[in-house]
Amino acid sequence: MKKSLGTSSTIISSERVEGTTVYNPAGDKLGSVDDLMIDKISGQIRYAVLEFGGFLGMGTDRYPLPWNMLKYDTQKEGYVVPLDKDKLEQAPHYAESDVPDYTPDYGRRVHNYYGADW
Amino acid sequence: MKKSLGTSSTIISSERVEGTTVYNPAGDKLGSVDDLMIDKISGQIRYAVLEFGGFLGMGTDRYPLPWNMLKYDTQKEGYVVPLDKDKLEQAPHYAESDVPDYTPDYGRRVHNYYGADW
Repeated sequence: MKKSLGTSSTIISSERVEGTTVYNPAGDKLGSVDDLMIDKISGQIRYAVLEFGGFLGMGTDRYPLPWNMLKYDTQKEGYVVPLDKDKLEQAPHYAESDVPDYTPDYGRRVHNYYGADW
Repeated sequence: MKKSLGTSSTIISSERVEGTTVYNPAGDKLGSVDDLMIDKISGQIRYAVLEFGGFLGMGTDRYPLPWNMLKYDTQKEGYVVPLDKDKLEQAPHYAESDVPDYTPDYGRRVHNYYGADW
């Protein structure tokens, strides 16, 4: 069913965020947002989980990106992250079927890798 | 594909929140979370959108609930909101295919209805 998802305000549906393309600053498509990881208590989104890698959509992995790294680009209709593919390939990631616990240690590891504030 | 969604930390997947049952304090099932509405800038969840009403899953509508109204109950494995069905039936809602803009005016109307802080 086609949905109008309400883009003219600052409020957006999680269904709309999921599936949105993620680019690097050079305009290369890195992948798309597969999932959002949320702090249960505060309701704050902590990570956008990028689907990246693989071949023709097969064998992709999941790369948690600290939410603050994503900037929405209205021209591209996608998010831009300050990353190139080489940096991303070495980043913490996991198989879709093997989601780790997002413990503080894991979160710190992800943030440290990207040089993002914890 | 079966997913482990990481429940032992305070971080939870949006895919896990969506579909979670919502109860009233008496333990009656009101419906389930269909979607989350997010502040694009801050990444803060503002509303859980409850699927409610209808008959045998047909003709349900969507009821935005201010996120702070939902408390997770580990025993019930669902959210509890301080609402009865009568209160909910009169609440702001819309058809799945007719999502309104979540403007400040709309948000204020929803919060006012539930007596929630704006």
